[in-house]
Amino acid sequence: MNMDFRLEYISKLFEKTSKKRIENYVISRIWHLLSDLEVKFIPQQYVKRNNEKYALTDLYLPQIGLHIEINEPAHYISDEKIEIDKKRKNEIEDKTNHFVIEVDCRESLEKIHEKIDFIVKTIREKVHQKRIEQNFIPWGNGSEFTPEYHKNKGFLRLKDEPCLRTIDDICALFGAKVPMRGYLRQGGVVHPSQKDLLIWWSIESNRLWDNELLENGDFICERHRDLEKRKNHVNGVVIDSHKRAVFFCNTDNLGFKFYRFKGIYQIDKDKTKPETGIIWKRIENELKI
Amino acid sequence: MNMDFRLEYISKLFEKTSKKRIENYVISRIWHLLSDLEVKFIPQQYVKRNNEKYALTDLYLPQIGLHIEINEPAHYISDEKIEIDKKRKNEIEDKTNHFVIEVDCRESLEKIHEKIDFIVKTIREKVHQKRIEQNFIPWGNGSEFTPEYHKNKGFLRLKDEPCLRTIDDICALFGAKVPMRGYLRQGGVVHPSQKDLLIWWSIESNRLWDNELLENGDFICERHRDLEKRKNHVNGVVIDSHKRAVFFCNTDNLGFKFYRFKGIYQIDKDKTKPETGIIWKRIENELKI
Repeated sequence: MNMDFRLEYISKLFEKTSKKRIENYVISRIWHLLSDLEVKFIPQQYVKRNNEKYALTDLYLPQIGLHIEINEPAHYISDEKIEIDKKRKNEIEDKTNHFVIEVDCRESLEKIHEKIDFIVKTIREKVHQKRIEQNFIPWGNGSEFTPEYHKNKGFLRLKDEPCLRTIDDICALFGAKVPMRGYLRQGGVVHPSQKDLLIWWSIESNRLWDNELLENGDFICERHRDLEKRKNHVNGVVIDSHKRAVFFCNTDNLGFKFYRFKGIYQIDKDKTKPETGIIWKRIENELKI
Repeated sequence: MNMDFRLEYISKLFEKTSKKRIENYVISRIWHLLSDLEVKFIPQQYVKRNNEKYALTDLYLPQIGLHIEINEPAHYISDEKIEIDKKRKNEIEDKTNHFVIEVDCRESLEKIHEKIDFIVKTIREKVHQKRIEQNFIPWGNGSEFTPEYHKNKGFLRLKDEPCLRTIDDICALFGAKVPMRGYLRQGGVVHPSQKDLLIWWSIESNRLWDNELLENGDFICERHRDLEKRKNHVNGVVIDSHKRAVFFCNTDNLGFKFYRFKGIYQIDKDKTKPETGIIWKRIENELKI
């Protein structure tokens, strides 16, 4: 029997933060008091700031654009440190249009609890507002990662952010033969009924390949790390005119691996160069199953 | 600034259980939803069963005699295992007059949440009942471990379960000179105004000494591990007729060390033997400061 995906995910989040004891206490309290299984929590969210700087926020709720920073007493050791933190908070808010709530852990336990009550109330209000506006994508129970879920739906649509967890599941969704496992496992399989469509499970990067989503996924750059092999690869693929249904793979910071449907892509021959790699351009947001 | 003792304690409890992810999830949820800072949680409680067997229950609430067992799916792999667990539960309940609630983690996350809601409701009812009966000793915020707290009270009384956290604090309480630190730090200090009373911080056991509370603390056995030294020690102490105010030291399973006031003791000359050690007998439950 499999563990519920949400329990698997949240309990892993708790485990990951367990060494930072106050942070763990605050995050677990927000989760349990909120008690809304449709709200997703992300730890250690990467946020771009100005001038190539970036920040990792302690907790991020992507559905409502809320970051929570749990500031242990060391955050307040000097006025300078306080000033730096303030600037950081402002930059995150400016850059992302998200907002940041800070928990000051110098306070008494009772005050920390009050702050968490305020945070929980804030999350509830924002989620409620989004639900009213029919603008809330609920975090699922894991059933939305199964081939059956998408088969029943009958299509993959970019804005639903469809996801699968394994290559086997991607193949099962299309009734395609699962390629052999192994070191050189192929990166895709031809669609059983559309011979010009390759189902491509693209890795972000590994030892050999350096693939990247560009302009929010409107383009994908695919390139071999070795220049000679890159040129051969580009020249080989460019004469072929197949399309690709892309499942872009990434691993989140709790170690969960997902293949996210990104749409149907075609080579952009103007932008593709043997020296810099293939540029795939999104031409469709939807795929019928 | 010191961390609030309750936050220190509970966050350590969460950290300690973090590898057992479902257990950690359930315990943290009970704690946060209960949200009663006067209720103490103890993990991995030792319980004697029949025939020298013992059990460690996942969570114990000593103020209301409630054990909670968080049974991961592996607990149910066979009828035999289920039968063993049932017998174990019955033995714990019979032996202790406590009661045990089990959480079956094969259930869906929603069902696990319902079970936790039931547990929280049960705890609230039992605590409420005890409070009405004025029979509830609240878990403190740590201020009750300070010398000032006991000085203000003016006495140590066994049934209040007085506790201190360091030898320095014990000495401060009586205005006694703190003995030198070091390997052979002495085990006690003479009361500044009662010269026949030794303030004794007794260790449970170490490499040299094997001390033990007997009959619920009515007696204490003090003995050196080495038989020759034990005889010399007994013979030396027995001719002296001092009394002892005992702070018995133990370390809980989260690593917190406490010196608990146990009363005033005198040598029980009938029971004391050079071969088996000194038997101290409790003669008073209270000590004025």
